[in-house]
Amino acid sequence: MWYAAAWEWEVAEADNKLARTICEVPLVFYKSESKGYVALDNRCCHRSAPLSLGRVEGDCLRCMYHGLLFNPAGEVIEIPGQDHIGANMKVRSYPVCSKGGMLWIWMGDADRADESDIHDFPPLSQPDQWRGFDRGDYLHYDANWLLIVDNLSDFSHVAFVHANTLGGSEAYAYDTQAEDLEKLDNGFKVVRWHRNSAPPPFHRKVIPAAEHEVDLDRCNTMAMYLPGVFLMETLFEPVGDNADQGRRREYRNCQFMTPETRNTTHFFWDYLHGSDLDNPDIAVSLKDSLMEGFMEDKIFIEEQQKLLEKSPDFAPKSFTADRAFSHFRNRWKIRLQEEDETQPLQIKDNPRRIL
Amino acid sequence: MWYAAAWEWEVAEADNKLARTICEVPLVFYKSESKGYVALDNRCCHRSAPLSLGRVEGDCLRCMYHGLLFNPAGEVIEIPGQDHIGANMKVRSYPVCSKGGMLWIWMGDADRADESDIHDFPPLSQPDQWRGFDRGDYLHYDANWLLIVDNLSDFSHVAFVHANTLGGSEAYAYDTQAEDLEKLDNGFKVVRWHRNSAPPPFHRKVIPAAEHEVDLDRCNTMAMYLPGVFLMETLFEPVGDNADQGRRREYRNCQFMTPETRNTTHFFWDYLHGSDLDNPDIAVSLKDSLMEGFMEDKIFIEEQQKLLEKSPDFAPKSFTADRAFSHFRNRWKIRLQEEDETQPLQIKDNPRRIL
Amino acid sequence: MWYAAAWEWEVAEADNKLARTICEVPLVFYKSESKGYVALDNRCCHRSAPLSLGRVEGDCLRCMYHGLLFNPAGEVIEIPGQDHIGANMKVRSYPVCSKGGMLWIWMGDADRADESDIHDFPPLSQPDQWRGFDRGDYLHYDANWLLIVDNLSDFSHVAFVHANTLGGSEAYAYDTQAEDLEKLDNGFKVVRWHRNSAPPPFHRKVIPAAEHEVDLDRCNTMAMYLPGVFLMETLFEPVGDNADQGRRREYRNCQFMTPETRNTTHFFWDYLHGSDLDNPDIAVSLKDSLMEGFMEDKIFIEEQQKLLEKSPDFAPKSFTADRAFSHFRNRWKIRLQEEDETQPLQIKDNPRRIL
Repeated sequence: MWYAAAWEWEVAEADNKLARTICEVPLVFYKSESKGYVALDNRCCHRSAPLSLGRVEGDCLRCMYHGLLFNPAGEVIEIPGQDHIGANMKVRSYPVCSKGGMLWIWMGDADRADESDIHDFPPLSQPDQWRGFDRGDYLHYDANWLLIVDNLSDFSHVAFVHANTLGGSEAYAYDTQAEDLEKLDNGFKVVRWHRNSAPPPFHRKVIPAAEHEVDLDRCNTMAMYLPGVFLMETLFEPVGDNADQGRRREYRNCQFMTPETRNTTHFFWDYLHGSDLDNPDIAVSLKDSLMEGFMEDKIFIEEQQKLLEKSPDFAPKSFTADRAFSHFRNRWKIRLQEEDETQPLQIKDNPRRIL
Repeated sequence: MWYAAAWEWEVAEADNKLARTICEVPLVFYKSESKGYVALDNRCCHRSAPLSLGRVEGDCLRCMYHGLLFNPAGEVIEIPGQDHIGANMKVRSYPVCSKGGMLWIWMGDADRADESDIHDFPPLSQPDQWRGFDRGDYLHYDANWLLIVDNLSDFSHVAFVHANTLGGSEAYAYDTQAEDLEKLDNGFKVVRWHRNSAPPPFHRKVIPAAEHEVDLDRCNTMAMYLPGVFLMETLFEPVGDNADQGRRREYRNCQFMTPETRNTTHFFWDYLHGSDLDNPDIAVSLKDSLMEGFMEDKIFIEEQQKLLEKSPDFAPKSFTADRAFSHFRNRWKIRLQEEDETQPLQIKDNPRRIL
Repeated sequence: MWYAAAWEWEVAEADNKLARTICEVPLVFYKSESKGYVALDNRCCHRSAPLSLGRVEGDCLRCMYHGLLFNPAGEVIEIPGQDHIGANMKVRSYPVCSKGGMLWIWMGDADRADESDIHDFPPLSQPDQWRGFDRGDYLHYDANWLLIVDNLSDFSHVAFVHANTLGGSEAYAYDTQAEDLEKLDNGFKVVRWHRNSAPPPFHRKVIPAAEHEVDLDRCNTMAMYLPGVFLMETLFEPVGDNADQGRRREYRNCQFMTPETRNTTHFFWDYLHGSDLDNPDIAVSLKDSLMEGFMEDKIFIEEQQKLLEKSPDFAPKSFTADRAFSHFRNRWKIRLQEEDETQPLQIKDNPRRIL
């Protein structure tokens, strides 16, 4: 599978030698002169020195411990002070693809990497239609990525965790239901309408004061794909006012969750608006509001992680609202079994029942 | 067994939702409207979210992740957005009893909980006879609780660890012996006299200057009960001066040691004086003096813990003064064996020989 | 084997009771009144209290928990409040020898300790010929000591890691080779010439400005002995100018690496110069320069350690320059096998292939 690995700006800011662990594999990312982005095992095959302390030279990366030079395929092409280079002097190189400013990495057998399998998110590349943050944002979670997937898979939590930020009221949990759950081989899609409600705080902050008292119908159309790609379309429109399309507003949201280790996660996200594109304050306000909500989630999710580590035998009890992520976890397990023979680098088993 | 769990003020200060781990079980304590104090497993049966991030509603506690409502028995009585509630939707509830401001919890089979088994300490509820701190105090130890029990079971350490604080001189170790060791099924009692000695520093600080040079007979009567309840009566009286009962002074001391985990301990204590009750400075001075002594102990005990973790095969060598805690550890092992079949939640085995 | 344990000044600064773990054994070092330096297991045989919290009394050390008094042989000779002392009341005592301000400890069978086996470094005791730091220096590494041995065993790293400090240019790696590798039963010796090169920065800082542009021949003669004793003689002389011996300059360097645990190391060192002995600025400048270089190494070595802990199956690929430390690691393994039956305290196996 393709995993979201890094925003392009992260590589640039790391002096073009970004050290990042994905699926418990330490990697280094650099941008080569003519071959695009490269990902290698971040340890020299000689003495395990980190290549991320190295130096980019054209298309190659030099280990700065004893000076070995690696090409983008991970092969050593120079050993200072020695002419012969053994055929085993190499590190693994991984397929990397950049889309919309996000680097995706294929952790499995390189022969099976197909860039069309990446769940692209077009709004990131459509600045004339969608305006997001100055640059995509990054958070680090001390939690297994599936706990974040769980969180996003059942929006009834919005009512309680985010009552005063993203949700707006606890009624959201009682009055709304996930609808039209579409089970996919590689994830699911689901829709959630909330009718006749006041604008939730994050939305209210970016619309004209004149609209603050107008009740809205709110619709979230969500897709969640393996391994942890969340794409959401959000719509607000005045209740029953089909004529008033000027007050119809839409957002686009992507959240990419990539396991760093079993217990930690890289989290990438952006939140884009489709109206009033020239007003830079809107993206700032949305980012602040969403971040406030994410921090509310993060407390819960990281505490869940701690409790699950203390209680490895915990067996969760499910109810109706859990259908979406139950399906997702099922598909994950099946995919792992399928890949078992060919993809030795994947995280294969989960030591805890829920994780 | 009943374990000291928390001072009532701790629950109040935690916004009435105190998260505390006891015997390696994460718990939440709250005060219900009409059913007194409640202790539940601190993880929602749904997705393991911590209930201590929840909200008390009357007698119940609501998980603020997806909104499940738990009654004091630990049963889910409401799932937002769903009518049916499965019979397995519950968490474990533990018997709790409050005495003298201290909450006691029964970690075993609820049917066998008998509040009369709690080792009550009456001075905590007799403000007309005994004056303690404004509120009972709490310390956290990075050490197995039995190492603290050991410490309190042999007062010869007072001579060396506390020569300048609680002891007064090293002579205490050479000249005094534990007397009248009474071995109990659930602990022991012991008496230690120190005759013809100058007032130790902590006592000297709270008596009139005119008495500073008067030699005293000092007697500590100590009881230690399973799992870690230490109760002590202390008497100071002028040597041989039976007529001078006005200078006879007594103290009462409780120290409750409760395992948080194998390697960490909750420590609760108070130190009460029986004279000059209206002088608030005495309790302040005693608390400062005792705390100074406890910190001297804590350094030793936490270093012991570290050394024992590094040296799991360490076999302690015993001598005469160890009879008290040898008996106590013996009773502890026997009690664990007895409870083995019925009390799966207890810490059953000790991975290290001494711990 | 003898391990470098501590500088004498470290014991003095620790109030003559230095706690230090060597080969995963917690020890206490103290200077007795008449029997020289003593090393004992740093845990009382009674309850595992640390003797380093004790009190030196003449030749003895008193545990300040319950007052047991230990003689330099580790035997308890006094138990306060008890007349009889059991024959098993003792801790292990280790042979210690002081040379040139450094304490050496023998971790094996005391009967086999022979002080002539210590790799003495005479310059430390020849202040009329060699001038070092005010006192020998100490660093702590979060890495297995063999990674530091590796580092010192192949000076080609000097070109890359220390290009701007100790090395001077990357040419050092391409143009120079280790010569005359002499394989010893207990280590190796090797020579490395660098001819016709500008003075490297650390040297340039301490020679007269008039010599800055004079090209030099540089020779490092290195010896590395088990378990981790590095001794180096460094010579700089003007190229081909045999007459100009006034500009010939020499240094002496010792680096002692002692395993604290499998993953951490005590590192002791000094760097001495043989000219201009009365100028105190030279030692200060050399220490600053070398320390700058050591910090460059430390980043690599501690990152290697982290990567190796993450990748326990990493199998290093070797090339020609690795002959020296390959031989050293081999000798280390053979020595461990030989000692296996008699030296139970040694670190016997390495859980990771490279460590």
